[in-house]
Amino acid sequence: MRRGSTEETPISVSYLSLSSPLRYGFPDLSLRRRPPPRGQVSPCNSVGEEGGPCVVIMAGVNGVEEALRQELAAKQAAVDQQADAVRELKSRSGVSPAEVDAAVEALKALKVEHGGLIKQLQAAVGSSADGGVSKEEFRQAVVNTLERRLFYTPSFKIYGGVAGLYDYGPNGCAIKTNVLSFWRQHFVLEENMLEVDCPCVTPEVVLQASGHVDKFTDLMVKDEKTGTCHRADHLLKDFCKEKLEKDLTLPPEKVAELKHVIAVLDDLSSEELGAKIKEYGITAPDTKNSLSDPYPFNLMFETSIGPTGLLHGYMRPETAQGIFVNFRDLYYYNGNKLPFAAAQIGQAFRNEISPRQGLLRVREFTLAEVEHFVDPQDKSHPKFSEVAQLEFLMFPKEDQLTGQSAKIMALGKAVSQGTVNNETLGYFIGRVFLFLTQLGIHKDRLRFRQHLPNEMAHYAADCWDAEIECSFGWIECVGIADRSAYDLRAHTEKSGINLVAHEKFSEPREVEKLVITPSKKELGLAFKANQKMVVQALEAMKEAEALEMKAALESKGEVEFQVCTLGKAVTINKNMVSVNIEKKKEHQREFTPSVIEPSFGIGRIIYCLYEHSFYTRSSKTENEQLNVFSFSPLVAPKKCTVLPLVKNDAFDGVAKTISRSLTRAGISNIIDITGTSIGKRYARTDEIGVPFAVTVDSTTSVTVRERDSRQQIRVNLDEVSSLVKDLTDGLTTWADVMWKYPAHTATSAED
Amino acid sequence: MRRGSTEETPISVSYLSLSSPLRYGFPDLSLRRRPPPRGQVSPCNSVGEEGGPCVVIMAGVNGVEEALRQELAAKQAAVDQQADAVRELKSRSGVSPAEVDAAVEALKALKVEHGGLIKQLQAAVGSSADGGVSKEEFRQAVVNTLERRLFYTPSFKIYGGVAGLYDYGPNGCAIKTNVLSFWRQHFVLEENMLEVDCPCVTPEVVLQASGHVDKFTDLMVKDEKTGTCHRADHLLKDFCKEKLEKDLTLPPEKVAELKHVIAVLDDLSSEELGAKIKEYGITAPDTKNSLSDPYPFNLMFETSIGPTGLLHGYMRPETAQGIFVNFRDLYYYNGNKLPFAAAQIGQAFRNEISPRQGLLRVREFTLAEVEHFVDPQDKSHPKFSEVAQLEFLMFPKEDQLTGQSAKIMALGKAVSQGTVNNETLGYFIGRVFLFLTQLGIHKDRLRFRQHLPNEMAHYAADCWDAEIECSFGWIECVGIADRSAYDLRAHTEKSGINLVAHEKFSEPREVEKLVITPSKKELGLAFKANQKMVVQALEAMKEAEALEMKAALESKGEVEFQVCTLGKAVTINKNMVSVNIEKKKEHQREFTPSVIEPSFGIGRIIYCLYEHSFYTRSSKTENEQLNVFSFSPLVAPKKCTVLPLVKNDAFDGVAKTISRSLTRAGISNIIDITGTSIGKRYARTDEIGVPFAVTVDSTTSVTVRERDSRQQIRVNLDEVSSLVKDLTDGLTTWADVMWKYPAHTATSAED
Repeated sequence: MRRGSTEETPISVSYLSLSSPLRYGFPDLSLRRRPPPRGQVSPCNSVGEEGGPCVVIMAGVNGVEEALRQELAAKQAAVDQQADAVRELKSRSGVSPAEVDAAVEALKALKVEHGGLIKQLQAAVGSSADGGVSKEEFRQAVVNTLERRLFYTPSFKIYGGVAGLYDYGPNGCAIKTNVLSFWRQHFVLEENMLEVDCPCVTPEVVLQASGHVDKFTDLMVKDEKTGTCHRADHLLKDFCKEKLEKDLTLPPEKVAELKHVIAVLDDLSSEELGAKIKEYGITAPDTKNSLSDPYPFNLMFETSIGPTGLLHGYMRPETAQGIFVNFRDLYYYNGNKLPFAAAQIGQAFRNEISPRQGLLRVREFTLAEVEHFVDPQDKSHPKFSEVAQLEFLMFPKEDQLTGQSAKIMALGKAVSQGTVNNETLGYFIGRVFLFLTQLGIHKDRLRFRQHLPNEMAHYAADCWDAEIECSFGWIECVGIADRSAYDLRAHTEKSGINLVAHEKFSEPREVEKLVITPSKKELGLAFKANQKMVVQALEAMKEAEALEMKAALESKGEVEFQVCTLGKAVTINKNMVSVNIEKKKEHQREFTPSVIEPSFGIGRIIYCLYEHSFYTRSSKTENEQLNVFSFSPLVAPKKCTVLPLVKNDAFDGVAKTISRSLTRAGISNIIDITGTSIGKRYARTDEIGVPFAVTVDSTTSVTVRERDSRQQIRVNLDEVSSLVKDLTDGLTTWADVMWKYPAHTATSAED
Repeated sequence: MRRGSTEETPISVSYLSLSSPLRYGFPDLSLRRRPPPRGQVSPCNSVGEEGGPCVVIMAGVNGVEEALRQELAAKQAAVDQQADAVRELKSRSGVSPAEVDAAVEALKALKVEHGGLIKQLQAAVGSSADGGVSKEEFRQAVVNTLERRLFYTPSFKIYGGVAGLYDYGPNGCAIKTNVLSFWRQHFVLEENMLEVDCPCVTPEVVLQASGHVDKFTDLMVKDEKTGTCHRADHLLKDFCKEKLEKDLTLPPEKVAELKHVIAVLDDLSSEELGAKIKEYGITAPDTKNSLSDPYPFNLMFETSIGPTGLLHGYMRPETAQGIFVNFRDLYYYNGNKLPFAAAQIGQAFRNEISPRQGLLRVREFTLAEVEHFVDPQDKSHPKFSEVAQLEFLMFPKEDQLTGQSAKIMALGKAVSQGTVNNETLGYFIGRVFLFLTQLGIHKDRLRFRQHLPNEMAHYAADCWDAEIECSFGWIECVGIADRSAYDLRAHTEKSGINLVAHEKFSEPREVEKLVITPSKKELGLAFKANQKMVVQALEAMKEAEALEMKAALESKGEVEFQVCTLGKAVTINKNMVSVNIEKKKEHQREFTPSVIEPSFGIGRIIYCLYEHSFYTRSSKTENEQLNVFSFSPLVAPKKCTVLPLVKNDAFDGVAKTISRSLTRAGISNIIDITGTSIGKRYARTDEIGVPFAVTVDSTTSVTVRERDSRQQIRVNLDEVSSLVKDLTDGLTTWADVMWKYPAHTATSAED
């Protein structure tokens, strides 16, 4: 009876990490609730989110803050003591004014030191007015630009919007298309992956097998008067964080307690969470009403397939299951050979309880997932040497546990010394690094963080998250997990279809095999209708049990045998079954492949790319800050803007001709023939990250301007299209072009 | 009280036609049930599906079948008469054997003629053994190849599958990606459209406004014993068609009746459908149990958004609504200028009652939709001249109604003579023609069919469907509709947000305007809490009513005024309101734009492309038929196969090098280093439609083979990548290449 017994096994939730918290930076998916850590963020993010290195929070580990709190308490005592002294001096007669002044000065100095300590402590716990606000301000500037230029907008805005649902506008769409095209080129094409495209609507049985139906839940509390729903762990975390940030005079044991709660938040049961909420007197954030006990809420959107209402279904919470259920066909398609990888890009849906943090936690999003199937006995990768020399920030679990920072490591070394479990996992880490940095993610704000033991399901061999630093902290954007054979086994058990691979031996191998042969005739005579269950029980015997029975039958001729499905023992005699050890020649080995799964949250990657690409520069002619997105031609929403320097028919005509020839060459472009000043029009195209501008200032030659340097060159009309195409296709660089073509000195019009 | 009153207006259902029937070819969306004919198929398809020209079915119109039925009846009578004569001759004594023989011969001849008539009639009604079965056979060959080579597969197969859900495998995925890329290039880039990407999860209010919640239904009957659901119109149609096909001796009035039922099927009410089902004694097809009365079933997948269960939602049945609700932002983004077009590619969901016909009627599918917003007073298109000279099969409504066939027309003429309503609609028809034919749809199996008056919603100005002929008949794959201002008005009414555009006048225009100015102070004193409702009622007065009040106030000083929202009349005196006609200068005109909507069913287009690209040729060496898909390089799932002629390390190495350089150039390719014969390997790559093969037969030069001609040329190693790239990018043709490079005569290995 193996089918469907997923109760005890951690469930398979792909790219769980898309649910990882950003602002608060703590894992919000309990191992018990949304268990299998397919890339869960680590508890350390609460420090990581401030931009510093990630340090595991346990009482005592974050020494800086502890020391500051102690120092602050001591300084407070000193201030109080000095204030007493001043008062005492003043009240005493015969004290020289100089002496009083000196004491007052000393008090003032102490107060300044005290103030300085408060600032340091605030900075350490994250409520700093300096770093904190500037990050918020930076984020606000990015988000304002994104919304104003319609990179994205809340969905269904004219109807008030729906939390967690966003539309991509023209610029956002173009960037998403570019990112996905590059993903296809970088992974599907270059790695010869088998791409599939499966429906979002998924029948219940598939998600029962994967474990989502039972376990893909968050704990929820309800406002007892209004019925408003909140995530229980969020409320408790918010309470602890606010207490730690606002109350700087908390006694050390209280500080330790609150930090401990945050650290173990993810491991708290529903009852423990409820008890803490009661103990701290936490109420609903908006109404201050009391809260219900926490209870699990399944995060999948439910629906019903077909008209009868009997076939229950869900909108898939990940795309991976579509690949697993197709394993047999894909393996056959690949000529019954391992390893091979399948890939899927598609929508996934998670009915978050209360989504916040804009594009980073949404209810519908695009995932790009790879399932690389490999023989568990051979996880080497033929192309590993191509990435072995890459060096980047890695953050192994040991370093996290001992409070160290992420360090630059060579990938080859990380694999050879066993930090990364195997070559295939390492290969994908390297490929993910190349993918992200080629998109434009800054390599010093990208790290690969290994999962801690408590984040990882028992079956997983090793998991690493690609985390990108943005104003919300270190955000997990790609999860790269060696999930062993878990998923294929789960679907084999549920479907009864054997999802396995075979290794053909070059020479047959001789093996000893236990062969149990029940005599159906004898058993039928003896047990009639129960015959089938007795046969099954006999065949299901483990080796030791069977050998014991063989011995007993040989010595005693019969034996008592417990049949679970009958709930009783029956008597088996030696005519009813034969148990033998036979030598057999085996021609192949059958096994369930391991799967290595890189899983990409496309929306998160794009949001981080926005932050990494955004900067402002001051306008030279006007007193304002101009926004720029420094997108590479690979991702830029348009590759080129064509603008007549001044409005006249001849220039407009030339501009239109250039625009048409660019379009025909597949170079997306904008033509801006509004009468606005050339400086304003440059600012407008810089603000959406267009890398090149062609300015028409004559009918025979034009200038080409590069966005970030604002350098311009002069090019003949008949060369401009192919030049821009070469620049955007990466066949030539701006530096080459600057060398080859005459520079054009911008008139005062620019900026 | 305008909000939400959609009861009387036909609803807005985009690309309804994706639900159009294929095998049966009749509109299965009643104007009453799924009303607004955003591209519904015409009733004529029942003939169209047999491949002939589309003829509207009404009693008497299909003269051939009528005449055949009459002739058959007469022939039957003659056979009976002659048989009687033979019997009579035989029973009579003294008749010469020669006389009997002659009578028997005459009877035989009559029987042969009778048999011929039966065959002709069967052919005419569509149950022909010749044409019919060969279409079925052709389809089976295509579908077998598609499934075997994993272009697609039923979803969740290991769990028994779910009707109407399919996975695209590697080849299908690659083709879909290519088709969508080309769609983006051809429409979004070349027409400078604003692409958006909105969620599938949609709150109820949006689909209430569009009309889908109330009216996106099909009529369903249930098997009264098993509860199995069937589409009522399908059962009735099946019954009528079977009767017509199988019972060739039906009396003419019965034939006419059954045909009439099929023709008006779509206009039958629930009651009428139910009555017909009872009258004909139609039972459940599988069980023969009796059926329930028909009742409407909404085809949207329902779900619930957020944890409270209070926010009802649906999976969108089309992508268009996401564009309409964003109109204001998109108009602003476009500089508040018309015309402009927005586009969206994405998943749509329809919970079909009983999906059949494979990839053509599915529950989840990819739509690509364009909404082109235009001033209703100016539907000219600046680029119309670029498509005006195109000529292709058009099928205007008049020709359908008078029983004529689709004819080749010049698009320019169709617009200038008013057959196509306006230039913009015409422009998109031309662009759709270019899109489909460039993909590889045969131009003689593509026609543009205009909607008949009963297919079109009252608000639509004109609708044309791009129909592609395949083994299921003429399939509607793109709907191109001028929907006037319907959709934006519906959302304006429901949301209270004014979705309008403005035309700025170059000179202000003087207009007379009625100005109603309620005195809030006086009204407040008089009506206290009711003041607001009185003010609203006064402001809402129509011109005539207001002028009447003005006259009454001037003559009598006060007037009784009915306030609906109060449910009573109040007394208004002349201090409470002033009504004046004022001359005003208007600087702009406000209007709701019209929308022209080309809507593409991507899955349907791809399926038709499969059929149009498929052919078989006989193998020269073996006695079998080889399958070929003649995909253009634009859509082919892989552009090139690289194969060593024989298995050896040197050739394998060269093959790998070529494959890598092709991949780097962005040319998707397969490398086939299995030991199979070169002929078998060519057959394998032809079968998935790879246009070119590079065969490595030396380490210095290789051959390049074109799939359809099977011609080969010899090319130096260092040229091969760029040559294949030029061929697949369309920069050179095979004919050019054949001229430039030495031909290679294939050895006997090929075929």
